[in-house]
Amino acid sequence: MTVKDYIDTNDFTKEELLDMIELAISLKAMIKANRYPQLLKDKTLGMIFQQVSTRTRISFETAMTDLGGHAQFYGPGTIQLGGHETIEDSARVMGSLVDILMARVDRHIDVANLAKYSAAPVINGMSELNHPTQELGDLLTMIENLPAGKKIEDCKLAFIGDATQVCVSLMFICSKMGMDFVQFGPKGHQITDGGLQVGNKIDLLAIGQKNCEVSGGTITISDDIESIKNADFVYTDVWYGLYDEEESGTSYMDIFYPKYQVTPELMALAGPDAKFMHCLPATRGEEVVDEVMDGKNSLCWIEAENRKHSIRAILAYLCPVAPEDTAAADKAEARANAVLAKIGK
Amino acid sequence: MTVKDYIDTNDFTKEELLDMIELAISLKAMIKANRYPQLLKDKTLGMIFQQVSTRTRISFETAMTDLGGHAQFYGPGTIQLGGHETIEDSARVMGSLVDILMARVDRHIDVANLAKYSAAPVINGMSELNHPTQELGDLLTMIENLPAGKKIEDCKLAFIGDATQVCVSLMFICSKMGMDFVQFGPKGHQITDGGLQVGNKIDLLAIGQKNCEVSGGTITISDDIESIKNADFVYTDVWYGLYDEEESGTSYMDIFYPKYQVTPELMALAGPDAKFMHCLPATRGEEVVDEVMDGKNSLCWIEAENRKHSIRAILAYLCPVAPEDTAAADKAEARANAVLAKIGK
Amino acid sequence: MTVKDYIDTNDFTKEELLDMIELAISLKAMIKANRYPQLLKDKTLGMIFQQVSTRTRISFETAMTDLGGHAQFYGPGTIQLGGHETIEDSARVMGSLVDILMARVDRHIDVANLAKYSAAPVINGMSELNHPTQELGDLLTMIENLPAGKKIEDCKLAFIGDATQVCVSLMFICSKMGMDFVQFGPKGHQITDGGLQVGNKIDLLAIGQKNCEVSGGTITISDDIESIKNADFVYTDVWYGLYDEEESGTSYMDIFYPKYQVTPELMALAGPDAKFMHCLPATRGEEVVDEVMDGKNSLCWIEAENRKHSIRAILAYLCPVAPEDTAAADKAEARANAVLAKIGK
Repeated sequence: MTVKDYIDTNDFTKEELLDMIELAISLKAMIKANRYPQLLKDKTLGMIFQQVSTRTRISFETAMTDLGGHAQFYGPGTIQLGGHETIEDSARVMGSLVDILMARVDRHIDVANLAKYSAAPVINGMSELNHPTQELGDLLTMIENLPAGKKIEDCKLAFIGDATQVCVSLMFICSKMGMDFVQFGPKGHQITDGGLQVGNKIDLLAIGQKNCEVSGGTITISDDIESIKNADFVYTDVWYGLYDEEESGTSYMDIFYPKYQVTPELMALAGPDAKFMHCLPATRGEEVVDEVMDGKNSLCWIEAENRKHSIRAILAYLCPVAPEDTAAADKAEARANAVLAKIGK
Repeated sequence: MTVKDYIDTNDFTKEELLDMIELAISLKAMIKANRYPQLLKDKTLGMIFQQVSTRTRISFETAMTDLGGHAQFYGPGTIQLGGHETIEDSARVMGSLVDILMARVDRHIDVANLAKYSAAPVINGMSELNHPTQELGDLLTMIENLPAGKKIEDCKLAFIGDATQVCVSLMFICSKMGMDFVQFGPKGHQITDGGLQVGNKIDLLAIGQKNCEVSGGTITISDDIESIKNADFVYTDVWYGLYDEEESGTSYMDIFYPKYQVTPELMALAGPDAKFMHCLPATRGEEVVDEVMDGKNSLCWIEAENRKHSIRAILAYLCPVAPEDTAAADKAEARANAVLAKIGK
Repeated sequence: MTVKDYIDTNDFTKEELLDMIELAISLKAMIKANRYPQLLKDKTLGMIFQQVSTRTRISFETAMTDLGGHAQFYGPGTIQLGGHETIEDSARVMGSLVDILMARVDRHIDVANLAKYSAAPVINGMSELNHPTQELGDLLTMIENLPAGKKIEDCKLAFIGDATQVCVSLMFICSKMGMDFVQFGPKGHQITDGGLQVGNKIDLLAIGQKNCEVSGGTITISDDIESIKNADFVYTDVWYGLYDEEESGTSYMDIFYPKYQVTPELMALAGPDAKFMHCLPATRGEEVVDEVMDGKNSLCWIEAENRKHSIRAILAYLCPVAPEDTAAADKAEARANAVLAKIGK
């Protein structure tokens, strides 16, 4: 382990990410068998949310306590990041009060700086750039639901719609794994148009292509529906991002509907066994119709539950634990007991 | 156990509710003896609050951790129910991430739908229709403080004032138990005027009368103070509900004061040994005066603490627990340990 | 132990406060050695925050779970103190639902009344008057970083700037310990001008002087920089308090800058080995410059972490724990098990 934080899956090797998946699968099976591994007993996770969240928040909190630890929730407005106090100073202090941190942030730079200045590991719970815990949950879901006879490296994922951070993240993880990744979306909303990230534009495609050089994966970005043929997984996300207020007023319906709506016809074009995925929440009747979301090929509910299972693995993978120093602990305990005895406790 | 959720005490038999009371009494005694039963060890409760709450929130959170579990607090505005995402979808996801849910909602239909679509059990932490965890706490308080020589079936409860959801709930639980229930309140604010519930009006009285057919209880709704005579328990609630903004602007003082204020004189009319109850918070000097609330016959403080004890029983009664599948857990643990060893943990 | 609450360090003897320090040091060493003392196992802390907080909130929550307990966070707006319900009634109820409470309040009178009416102990997490948990963390930091050959009683602390509640608190704890305390600050912002406390003015200096009579400490309040000479510890706080909105619009920069800014020159004047302290958050470039805050003589990061360690000791010191009543627990457990068996649990 050389990387302290989980800010971007591109910081990890394919093998490391697959180790996390193996850990996720085994811890999931263990807890489904009603044994809770006390891997993070007495450890504390601090959870910073600059935005409202359901899945990510519940998943982190449950995952941490499943492993014997505790999670503290700092909701929007309850902890300042980079307000009166610099983010460097906040990171330094928070990193000394808890064992591990996660943050869902408005700006990627904030979670990056949090990681840089905090002694405790930091996990990126979504920024405007990427959503790496979603990536691992999605990878877990695909690996648990591989087409018969295929390995993950043989699979194709077609993302339909807007170049949200989830879309970009899927490009990252698919290219890392050696999969074929397609974004089928309109010009102006393609990954090559810059995704949602704020400030200095990053060449997102170049990151994916570099991954492909190592892994043998491919990346296709197109507004031609033919590009989604033979996809094993069809994935979509809402048509308006959480960073929407920065975008101009053009109606997303005008841009995406009906061409990019995931319907039974679109699914059929991908292939008869194509599986449907969605990071949720979904706006039913916009980016996806009920028949697909509630259909037999929908993985989106398993995928949602897998957020918890994959986040558990990330926490177990990253959170520092050390063996007891028995001699030092005995000595300190004797001192503490002397005081407690003195005060009648 | 055939009912998964605790949405309405009318879904349970008298025997089932008395089983919960017996559980509440024994767990209360156990913890007062400083032994915490780890019945819900490692289990997670999700708490959805659409409204601010003191007693209900603290009671649920303490009760869950008293039993070895964890409670997650989702305050007003932190989790959307039926916003962008449908409540069905939210319920399906949340029900897969936690073991049991509770919700204090603006609209009863929301907690009902949450229960319908969540795989995890759902507890109603108060709606505009009813307040069933308050009911069980009140029943516990009455059973612990029965008049000498009386059984609960022999008792009479007189509710004074507005047909709040607490008033309606008391009618439900008293009629279920076979007690004599009285609402002494002004016309326009009587249970038969519809209570506070929103949307399709339910015939609340009919529910109570159906209970009475089974239990032998009685229900009286009157604006004649003679109706409260010989009450063992005199109960009141604030004169403005939490759903007040829906009500017209008429001053509650004009309607209820002084006739429906609980004073020593009113208590004396009920009887010399009548006990005072209040769900709290109280507006001292409006629905009740200090002399009654702080008097020797006041049960309201015991009643508040009993929220915790009764909620503990509801959680223990409903939350799914299953024995460990040792073979499966061993196998999964070996896999997890292999990864942890590989990464040097 | 005769004092139930931790509202003001002036309620404790020097010996009692030093017992807390000894407990803090030993529990810190024990946990750094990876043994978590389960002193407050199953106990519940309720945390009332009327203001946003980072250090105090995280410290309390981590400290409580480090000791095996649970902490509940009631953020601004989530629990009313003295709104519709009187604070007396809220205190009475909350004190029966949790084992121990802490409150960061807008008004000192509220935390004092909370303590008065709650059966559970109450810890003051900061008011406009004082900040006693900060005091203990600061005392811990000084005792861990004593100048060679000096005892705490031999040390001098110079507070630079505004008579905030942290400044007043330092006067309290330094005078209690028998130290030499200096406030170097401008007229109108000196402790003798009344500090920040609201309502009936307290003679703050008189409290400190009374401490000095017992301890042999001294108190100096001056706008002459010579007063800080030979200080072992130089301490500052922000130039605008959390109660700022009550203050008039005069710019703090005009009043305090540059005379009261902590610079390397000011530190040199105190002495070559003087240590820098700050309660944080800091406004870099206002009350302190980077070179001091990040310099080798800065204790402010250790001081921030020590909030957690000292609060752990306060919790262990005050939170009631009692031995199990085995006979009563056995009897109650048998009753509970009978119900659980009946319902198939």
